[in-house]
Amino acid sequence: MRAAVMRNKKIVVTDLQPPVPGPGEVLVKTLACGICGSDLHALKHAEKLVEGAKRSGGPFVMDLQRDIVMGHEFCAELVDFGPNTPHRFKPGTRVCAMPVLIRPTGVETVGYSNDNPGGYGEYMRLTESLLLEVPDRLSTDFAALTEPMAVGYHAVQKAHLAQEDVPLVIGCGPVGLAVVAALKMENVHPIVAADFSPRRRDLAQQIGADIVVDPKVKSPYQSWKEMAAYRDPGKAPKLPPWMPGPALRPAVVFECVGVPGIIESIMTAAPAHARIIVVGVCMERDQFEPMFGINKELNLQFVLGYSGEEFSRTFRNLAEGKLNPAPLITGKVGVEGVARAFEDLASPEHHAKILVEPWHG
Amino acid sequence: MRAAVMRNKKIVVTDLQPPVPGPGEVLVKTLACGICGSDLHALKHAEKLVEGAKRSGGPFVMDLQRDIVMGHEFCAELVDFGPNTPHRFKPGTRVCAMPVLIRPTGVETVGYSNDNPGGYGEYMRLTESLLLEVPDRLSTDFAALTEPMAVGYHAVQKAHLAQEDVPLVIGCGPVGLAVVAALKMENVHPIVAADFSPRRRDLAQQIGADIVVDPKVKSPYQSWKEMAAYRDPGKAPKLPPWMPGPALRPAVVFECVGVPGIIESIMTAAPAHARIIVVGVCMERDQFEPMFGINKELNLQFVLGYSGEEFSRTFRNLAEGKLNPAPLITGKVGVEGVARAFEDLASPEHHAKILVEPWHG
Repeated sequence: MRAAVMRNKKIVVTDLQPPVPGPGEVLVKTLACGICGSDLHALKHAEKLVEGAKRSGGPFVMDLQRDIVMGHEFCAELVDFGPNTPHRFKPGTRVCAMPVLIRPTGVETVGYSNDNPGGYGEYMRLTESLLLEVPDRLSTDFAALTEPMAVGYHAVQKAHLAQEDVPLVIGCGPVGLAVVAALKMENVHPIVAADFSPRRRDLAQQIGADIVVDPKVKSPYQSWKEMAAYRDPGKAPKLPPWMPGPALRPAVVFECVGVPGIIESIMTAAPAHARIIVVGVCMERDQFEPMFGINKELNLQFVLGYSGEEFSRTFRNLAEGKLNPAPLITGKVGVEGVARAFEDLASPEHHAKILVEPWHG
Repeated sequence: MRAAVMRNKKIVVTDLQPPVPGPGEVLVKTLACGICGSDLHALKHAEKLVEGAKRSGGPFVMDLQRDIVMGHEFCAELVDFGPNTPHRFKPGTRVCAMPVLIRPTGVETVGYSNDNPGGYGEYMRLTESLLLEVPDRLSTDFAALTEPMAVGYHAVQKAHLAQEDVPLVIGCGPVGLAVVAALKMENVHPIVAADFSPRRRDLAQQIGADIVVDPKVKSPYQSWKEMAAYRDPGKAPKLPPWMPGPALRPAVVFECVGVPGIIESIMTAAPAHARIIVVGVCMERDQFEPMFGINKELNLQFVLGYSGEEFSRTFRNLAEGKLNPAPLITGKVGVEGVARAFEDLASPEHHAKILVEPWHG
């Protein structure tokens, strides 16, 4: 099969043997697969990533001397079955799944593995029991976005939002956009979102942000503050007489940047009692100042991925039109175009999400 | 008045003018005042402390060129009234209060201030509306411990403990001991507590820990794990088939050490989904590895002080005998003994809490 593989820190196109489905597994044709920021990071900092995964128990354990077919945000078409597989769906059925295989020996990832190719190749193998059948009304493109949209949905669930909470989304790349979309779906308003890139601010607005901020022009925390007054002052908690008022609604800051220093900068600038949801994935050692957390009694909730239930619910929300990921999709390529797409994605001005279509190249 | 003051990074005894109570304020005689770890830190790292307070909005803003009478954990006796003060209590009444003055110009601290002497001197001024009358059944020593015990009580409140949560207390200095006492009062069990010092482990056991661990001998997280199995396996959540079982009860780790590196070490070793309550006060810049937080979906709740309501409730709990702080008190000194007491407190083997009694010296 044709596939775009990671080899010596480059993306190259090559021919590979298609994977063989084991017991309980199916062979599928990849119809569409999103390129994730983690894949860009994996290409650029492969050794660091593998070393970090070993240290912290993460999923990115790979042999970098061998080819890796990345791609874990996919929609596919059922082709064939491994032995002892229940045949829940007919060949030709469009399917989605979490990018993991459940095997008697444990869980394996699809897309960050030497043995389980991801969606940047023509074929994958998947665990049949995890398959979700894509209904006719859900497009292949939108179905492929289930995975990144589930990341945003999970982050919003972990925030346990209460009625008066006012969210601030720092960073409007694909992760930030998925968070904004999930907030809009949950009818949380106002949604304040910040990014240095005009293109990303525009996408954030399209996908549901009420207010977008350019941090070069204005502090996102100031914009948040202007939106965080209680509409009904009777609902505001009474402040002690010596506190400067008025009371503001509770702040929930979503960190969607994932670079060293960003957590510290949020802790420094966030309002007192803010809850900070760390959705961005900073893979390096980082610094922070505990006193900022202490003096403001901040809460940091780190989040990762999604549960199976959250993945299915995101899939249903997409199928029912409750979530509209259309603004995210900014380009499509075949396997030959993956290397160039990785380069293009480095600039926030051009793209949010590029879909790889291995069979249309 | 006689007072032990901080001057040029030393504690010296000197004679000062007693403070003059302003409107709404009272003059009190200090009966007993605990020496707090923050005071030791303030003496050793005064410039750093003031600089950090300026940077992070903390309370420790002082002019180090002038004398400072520290001491913010006190029980006192009412002596006289400032102008326009309601005279709620008679002179001679024993009182407790949060170590702050509420003035028309804002809040000022007592004990970390050039102008408002704390309890290491014979007299203080306090805000009358904040005074709590000490009932006969509550000893002066125990009443003086309201402040540090309120810190533990607040930390436990901020943890929002659920029925199955199993706490692990890292560090059994006065803060850790106050946390253990508050956990015991809330009837949370088992309580696992860790400290390198045999003396402190002994105090932790006296004050309510069910299991104490010497981290040199055994990992506190291993000891926690052995205590965290569901007693009724029917109550354990069902794990996915690929997760190594059995399911453990949720972990709530109280960080009561407050030195650089401790938050990172807890994040590295804590079980997945642990909530970490940061009660220790690390005043320096620190490092951490976000990936540990992410891969385990950890939650960090920083806490500070207590509310007025929590302070009063702690005071009532002490008066009603629900909280027994007796193991904390390991020594008493007059003003002449404060400098030596600061030295003695540097070793965990000798003391937990030393009370200063300025009138018995």
